[in-house]
Amino acid sequence: MLKVIAEDFIKPEAVEIVLPLYRELVEQTRTEPLCIAYELFTDQKNPGHFIFIEEWPDRAALDIHCRTEHFTRLVPLINAHQRQEGTFILMDAIA
Amino acid sequence: MLKVIAEDFIKPEAVEIVLPLYRELVEQTRTEPLCIAYELFTDQKNPGHFIFIEEWPDRAALDIHCRTEHFTRLVPLINAHQRQEGTFILMDAIA
Repeated sequence: MLKVIAEDFIKPEAVEIVLPLYRELVEQTRTEPLCIAYELFTDQKNPGHFIFIEEWPDRAALDIHCRTEHFTRLVPLINAHQRQEGTFILMDAIA
Repeated sequence: MLKVIAEDFIKPEAVEIVLPLYRELVEQTRTEPLCIAYELFTDQKNPGHFIFIEEWPDRAALDIHCRTEHFTRLVPLINAHQRQEGTFILMDAIA
């Protein structure tokens, strides 16, 4: 099992533009047969800081996700409003 | 509902020392009546980088957690092995 935290940093003035794009990305991703969990959050103290918490069976499933039509179409539209580069952490469960 | 990501940065040589402390913290925290979810992960690329993903009904429940006997006893024992200050993000669900 692979757990992922992916963080995006969007210009605060673009939040309303990216929200429908994020919602479509989440909706479409959850239809992927290998997607176990895909949730999106915002940082209470930092407008435009979006955080995905994801669960995939393995790295191969994540790679398939990153090649889907919805990912390759929507992520560049979202990233056009970045204020800094996104980050991600691939994680193993301890407890 | 409050989602939390809390990140700890432990000296790599102290990982084996902190692991049983973390395990006890997770086990005890999950017995708290207000704890919805409390999971611990490690960063695949950064030994000693530990990540909690937590879910609480609200901020008051998180504050109660931070005052429990197990938290106030175990966290300083873990933090004695920090290589840098921990961080946390309080988050609201978007989707």
